[in-house]
Amino acid sequence: MARRASRYSREREKCSGREPPDMGFKTDIEIAREAKKQPIQQIGAKLDIPSEALLPYGHDKAKVGQEFINSLDDRPNGKLILVTAINPTPAGEGKTTTTVGLGDGLNRIGKRAAICIREASLGPNFGMKGGAAGGGHAQVVPMEDMNLHFTGDFHAITAAHNLLSAMIDNHIYWGNELGIDERRVTWRRVIDMNDRALRDVVTALGGVANGFPRQTGFDITVASEVMAILCLAADLDDLQSRLGDMIVAYTRDRAPIYCRDIKADGAMTVLLKDAMQPNLVQTLENNPAFVHGGPFANIAHGCNSVIATKTALKLADYVVTEAGFGADLGAEKFMNIKCRKAGLAPDAVVIVATVRAMKMNGGVAKADLGAENVAAVEAGCANLGRHIKNVKGFGVPVVVGINHFAGDTEAEIAAVKAYVAEQGAEAILCKHWADGGAGAEELARKVVELADSGVAEFTTLYPDEMPLFEKIEAVAKGIYHAGEVTADKKVRDQLTAWEEAGYGHLPVCMAKTQYSFSTDPNERGAPEGHTIPVREVRLSAGAGFVVAICGEIMTMPGLPRVPASENIRLNEDSLIEGLF
Amino acid sequence: MARRASRYSREREKCSGREPPDMGFKTDIEIAREAKKQPIQQIGAKLDIPSEALLPYGHDKAKVGQEFINSLDDRPNGKLILVTAINPTPAGEGKTTTTVGLGDGLNRIGKRAAICIREASLGPNFGMKGGAAGGGHAQVVPMEDMNLHFTGDFHAITAAHNLLSAMIDNHIYWGNELGIDERRVTWRRVIDMNDRALRDVVTALGGVANGFPRQTGFDITVASEVMAILCLAADLDDLQSRLGDMIVAYTRDRAPIYCRDIKADGAMTVLLKDAMQPNLVQTLENNPAFVHGGPFANIAHGCNSVIATKTALKLADYVVTEAGFGADLGAEKFMNIKCRKAGLAPDAVVIVATVRAMKMNGGVAKADLGAENVAAVEAGCANLGRHIKNVKGFGVPVVVGINHFAGDTEAEIAAVKAYVAEQGAEAILCKHWADGGAGAEELARKVVELADSGVAEFTTLYPDEMPLFEKIEAVAKGIYHAGEVTADKKVRDQLTAWEEAGYGHLPVCMAKTQYSFSTDPNERGAPEGHTIPVREVRLSAGAGFVVAICGEIMTMPGLPRVPASENIRLNEDSLIEGLF
Repeated sequence: MARRASRYSREREKCSGREPPDMGFKTDIEIAREAKKQPIQQIGAKLDIPSEALLPYGHDKAKVGQEFINSLDDRPNGKLILVTAINPTPAGEGKTTTTVGLGDGLNRIGKRAAICIREASLGPNFGMKGGAAGGGHAQVVPMEDMNLHFTGDFHAITAAHNLLSAMIDNHIYWGNELGIDERRVTWRRVIDMNDRALRDVVTALGGVANGFPRQTGFDITVASEVMAILCLAADLDDLQSRLGDMIVAYTRDRAPIYCRDIKADGAMTVLLKDAMQPNLVQTLENNPAFVHGGPFANIAHGCNSVIATKTALKLADYVVTEAGFGADLGAEKFMNIKCRKAGLAPDAVVIVATVRAMKMNGGVAKADLGAENVAAVEAGCANLGRHIKNVKGFGVPVVVGINHFAGDTEAEIAAVKAYVAEQGAEAILCKHWADGGAGAEELARKVVELADSGVAEFTTLYPDEMPLFEKIEAVAKGIYHAGEVTADKKVRDQLTAWEEAGYGHLPVCMAKTQYSFSTDPNERGAPEGHTIPVREVRLSAGAGFVVAICGEIMTMPGLPRVPASENIRLNEDSLIEGLF
Repeated sequence: MARRASRYSREREKCSGREPPDMGFKTDIEIAREAKKQPIQQIGAKLDIPSEALLPYGHDKAKVGQEFINSLDDRPNGKLILVTAINPTPAGEGKTTTTVGLGDGLNRIGKRAAICIREASLGPNFGMKGGAAGGGHAQVVPMEDMNLHFTGDFHAITAAHNLLSAMIDNHIYWGNELGIDERRVTWRRVIDMNDRALRDVVTALGGVANGFPRQTGFDITVASEVMAILCLAADLDDLQSRLGDMIVAYTRDRAPIYCRDIKADGAMTVLLKDAMQPNLVQTLENNPAFVHGGPFANIAHGCNSVIATKTALKLADYVVTEAGFGADLGAEKFMNIKCRKAGLAPDAVVIVATVRAMKMNGGVAKADLGAENVAAVEAGCANLGRHIKNVKGFGVPVVVGINHFAGDTEAEIAAVKAYVAEQGAEAILCKHWADGGAGAEELARKVVELADSGVAEFTTLYPDEMPLFEKIEAVAKGIYHAGEVTADKKVRDQLTAWEEAGYGHLPVCMAKTQYSFSTDPNERGAPEGHTIPVREVRLSAGAGFVVAICGEIMTMPGLPRVPASENIRLNEDSLIEGLF
């Protein structure tokens, strides 16, 4: 039993920010398996999606048909609510759990609401435990499928990405008419697996018949620009156009070679045709959940697909979505990239915080989180305060959701509430983990009040026409409260070259540690005046942003010493063990 | 228009063995798109599969649930009919087309019949035109999906295979407790893409954090032993057990390391759980078609899955299935590997031949196939005669199906019929390409007569206990009519070593050119007394056979100079162009 408990522990920390439960508690997967799922057609009917517009995948998953989506164009949009969070700590914050809980809470108070979250990557599940969708009584089901192949979207992205890779090498093989410099092929390959041996490889060995050897590598599928594009594309035409725009290599004299030059964009679009259709599943309380897309939150924008969000806004009165990491990275990219590009504007933002995370931000070690420590909570609230201020800067009203843990004391909760009130916002205690939607009703009512108030006047942080380096400075100073941004001449020259090539209007996609406002992951709280070094910049010409890398970027994870996969199996009842 | 015609030409040759049609004819894809598909639940109902036992993938595809399959155990089996063919020529023979036509013909004459065919590999579709399932009015639909991601089975196999690859390198990385010799890792990686640059690669470059560099490579997914296992496994337990049995590497002193030692078999089984369930689709005439599995026909056994065939036998009175390549390779492996391993026994065999292919076997060049040439037909019939004799040797009654082409003359057809009659069998002219099931009614009636006659006394070619090299000789002499089998000492020693290690009871899986009974692809007709050189042997310990390689084996194709993918796209109506 000790072993089981330790598994639960890891799971809870990752998925819903929980300590190992008493053995009397049910685990996430036990709760999920007891779910009374409704046929997916019934879930669709709640949003008036006709049965024939749903392409079923089994009985509990479906894709929403493209033709039906096209037919919604003239409908008004519902209200858009973003769930974001403080900087993550090992204590966990429960952003997805709160997204699900809020969605269920809104439905419970009689609103027509849907949630929009990201799909899980397959590979990492075999390293650490799988990232379930939410936790406790605020989950999305079917959890097993969502952590395995789901509806095949990521497999389609892998295939589309690697078709382009094969066609590039094939072009070189058959004469290299485009004059690609083999040393300057920037397009790598992808696989949805944690496989460190593939990070850096030499291909095309073995002689003439296999092509020209060159050094390259594999990234994990979620890091593909194809993934970012799928999540930002308005429709299939836009998808193909963006795929065509991707830069895959350079000639000897540094002229870019586009995917379009390789003539891969059409076939890639065919491979992605089904993947572009949003997936519909349900929460434990049988409310609709769109789960679609899952771009890396560092080298991409880390939000679910635009097409899912826009479809949900046509079908529901309130749409709750989330963005990767803390608000400094996730919400910033949601606003400056996703909303800017897609013409979306959030009506309210929920910032998720926990008493435990506040304590850690206040300097308490993880082992000591059990003891009441109001002073530490108060000290740690500076991190939360910074996020509240930042989000308000986007012109959107904010409410704080305190994701409740059994060990939280009255005094600690009161300290957070008082602090938030000082910042001109309200903090609401939420018990959706224990109670489902019923535990998030108060938050739901507040969100409705804010979203319906019409006070939101969404604005991005910087205009399109601002020079690229200034955009980076705008985020670093305006959001991270840094004192300066440094970059060597090569980086600055590169940005200038892209501006001259017509890419100056793009937003910047910051790649930085999620654990701190600074580039030092150990610096909690609300540091200011620090230096943000931009080590490297990359152009995602198809996705439409310039990535500014301010730290280490790992685009292919490895497996740990004892990978989770060693314990994943089917049990006697054909149920999956070890994945959660 | 010339360009379109040439595309059609290639398609017809590949799929249904047709010349470029007059422009008045409809193409395969045009016919397929006009299909009046029934909801897949209705197709299932024809075999009394309850709706809840079908896991739908869209409206026209479904997987048959494992629990339902388990519930069929006590039912009697229907009759099993194998469709095989003469050695393929560039003129085409139309084996899948005949399988579909015969299935429809059986249904038309009032029999409860189903067909079982293989799934298509994704990658090759981007090189040459996609292999549609059948042709003309004898096709399986939805053709587009079947040539793209279908129900994700191959993606699941790719993921399971590559999880094991990653876990092997990860094991070495974290200390190599098993003592794997990095030079002797036999397990490669797979991708469902034609990508010659991946045939031979060096992985784990880039320093300490990425592991130990070693030379390895990628095969195409259909060549994976995991694919062969999925197609031979009786159920999920058997699947896991076979996966565990796979040899993935050797130690310095040549001791085998099994997949089980890496502890990957449980997680691989979880990844393959859904893929193990057979897929149900329909023919143009709305008859049930199981499409499941697709192992390489040279380094594996080239038949659809055992679980699909067995399920179909429980549900239908007549089950028509096919095997890869000509009868010397496909039918031989069907009998000696699939039937032996699965306890199946065919009740009748259809050998597909065409007048055109007989002419080519008789020495006529492809350009001259248009002119009547009875003498050449008669000369070429030797190839067909050899196959008839071989198949009869398995104790199963044979009928020849002549797949009709518009240019065939009465005299040529009569010549084939007369020749087959001399061999003690009957040849029946079939017009399913033009007329669908109606064109195959006569063949269907004959097949019913043979299958119901009870004359079949199925026997394999060699017993389990025969030494491995003698098994190779048994096939080479008994089927290919070779004079001798040669192999150097290394090969013979290897076979002896496997016998000593307990693998002597396995059948042999011959890898040889499909174009001839000899190892020279240009030697048509019925050569005899030739030498079969065994260049290499490989042990597939999980699939359960020893591969004897008698020629070049290409396990990773490349793309041609102008890959089909350059012309694949969605048109204005969102229909796929260029794939077929």
